[in-house]
Amino acid sequence: MTTIAFAGLGAMGLPMARNLLARGHRVRGIDINPGALDALAAAGGERTPGAAAAAEGADVLILMVINAAQAEQVLFADGALQALPEGGIVCLMATCPPGAVARIAERVDAAGRRFVDAPVSGGTAGAIAASLTIMAACERESFKTMQPVFQAIGQRIFHVGERPGQGATVKTVNQLLCGVHIAVVAEAFSLAAKAGVDLDVLLEIMGGSAASSWMLKDRGPRMLQAEPEVSSAVDIFVKDLGIVLEAGREAKAALPIAAVAHQMFLATSGRGEGRADDSQVIRSYHRLNGLT
Amino acid sequence: MTTIAFAGLGAMGLPMARNLLARGHRVRGIDINPGALDALAAAGGERTPGAAAAAEGADVLILMVINAAQAEQVLFADGALQALPEGGIVCLMATCPPGAVARIAERVDAAGRRFVDAPVSGGTAGAIAASLTIMAACERESFKTMQPVFQAIGQRIFHVGERPGQGATVKTVNQLLCGVHIAVVAEAFSLAAKAGVDLDVLLEIMGGSAASSWMLKDRGPRMLQAEPEVSSAVDIFVKDLGIVLEAGREAKAALPIAAVAHQMFLATSGRGEGRADDSQVIRSYHRLNGLT
Repeated sequence: MTTIAFAGLGAMGLPMARNLLARGHRVRGIDINPGALDALAAAGGERTPGAAAAAEGADVLILMVINAAQAEQVLFADGALQALPEGGIVCLMATCPPGAVARIAERVDAAGRRFVDAPVSGGTAGAIAASLTIMAACERESFKTMQPVFQAIGQRIFHVGERPGQGATVKTVNQLLCGVHIAVVAEAFSLAAKAGVDLDVLLEIMGGSAASSWMLKDRGPRMLQAEPEVSSAVDIFVKDLGIVLEAGREAKAALPIAAVAHQMFLATSGRGEGRADDSQVIRSYHRLNGLT
Repeated sequence: MTTIAFAGLGAMGLPMARNLLARGHRVRGIDINPGALDALAAAGGERTPGAAAAAEGADVLILMVINAAQAEQVLFADGALQALPEGGIVCLMATCPPGAVARIAERVDAAGRRFVDAPVSGGTAGAIAASLTIMAACERESFKTMQPVFQAIGQRIFHVGERPGQGATVKTVNQLLCGVHIAVVAEAFSLAAKAGVDLDVLLEIMGGSAASSWMLKDRGPRMLQAEPEVSSAVDIFVKDLGIVLEAGREAKAALPIAAVAHQMFLATSGRGEGRADDSQVIRSYHRLNGLT
């Protein structure tokens, strides 16, 4: 049984924390939203007065916050790092730029705590089903220590390297492919629509051919709806492809396709549609190519 | 039993013609390469003095040539169209720009013959296994007539529209997705390599995540080899993404991601590597981003 301080009880974090509780771990929530702390308490989680109190005596501090700035807030400004016992593990699971992750890791290391860079993929559905993919970069010893925690929330658990930032890089590459795959389906549909081809038939054909992708099958049908339910928002890819390009700048690697895809999500958000389902990046192509 | 004049006995055409023979159809070959005609004869095909002689008395003339110019050569310059009986079917299965297909269809129609726009996907493997996907655009009656022929060579047979060029558009959209999916895997790998991430582990993770695509699984492993066996050449995508962009110009549709992907294949070919396996578009990213 591990005692876990869990920061960030949102759409991903709350079900992850619930799965940790269901596997017998102790979980103390950290969130600015009192409703999230209520939901955690209802599932058996502990209430504490704040981040530092939650981290006090904990074995692991999981950060499933929005971005690197929030992780720094919890760790350094709110005092969670100093409150965590020496040798305790800070496990950053949010999607952050690899460079920012490496910089946070340095400060955690300097404070005598251990750092695990472990972003996840699988979305809300994977968080609920405890079937997340976990891409961990850390010392082998810390990876072993984290096993009971990882196995409570994930299904495919990888040790991708020893250097903090390598996990974030793998997640970044994952998001590069995901974002481009969504945008290019929209691009392909805009050409087909302009040429008067039936998009339902097209989708059926492409889904069974070498042109297929996980995103084509998942987002393609939603692109044919005007107002699909929001599974993941446009603004998530504005952020994540932004992280991809930041990782490219840090590594000094040109990423021309990802850069174009980012522009299409950005323009969608810029028209005030950032909260729409990410399949609606197709609206940028509709605008661009004069389709309705 | 259908009598078929078959033009273009290359890597795709020869196995297709063999499958037609195996299903009891009569096949007369048309090819400038005598070796290809020998191979067809060995499988039970008929020799004729040329395109016009092959088309004389045939029910169907299949064109599985390299491009639209070769199709026009066989049909109009070599006299196959005039030799084909009135009401006979010209079935264009090569990958051609939708506009060029529509223009050929008009001339076939004006000559009193029927036109079927029916490109295929599935590659050499699909041609050999008779498991091609066929995307046919033509009148419903002609689609019915073609069934015994299509079923001898394909597995997934779609009637995508009545207007010639719509089949070509579907194939074009297919190639847009295929070409971009290959190039973006190369782009993702170049970022990962620059950041020092193990590409075998990366490939394993991506292959089971939302970042997956048919091309990632097929071409990804070949990108990690320096000189993989050639399954399909870089120059095929120089041509096919060229057709994509031509279709975009004809439809007046901007295709920014496809345009970038085309440049990466084009540059690979420009360095004299056009005959390498198309996974080797990754070499353009290696050059661009200074990797070896």
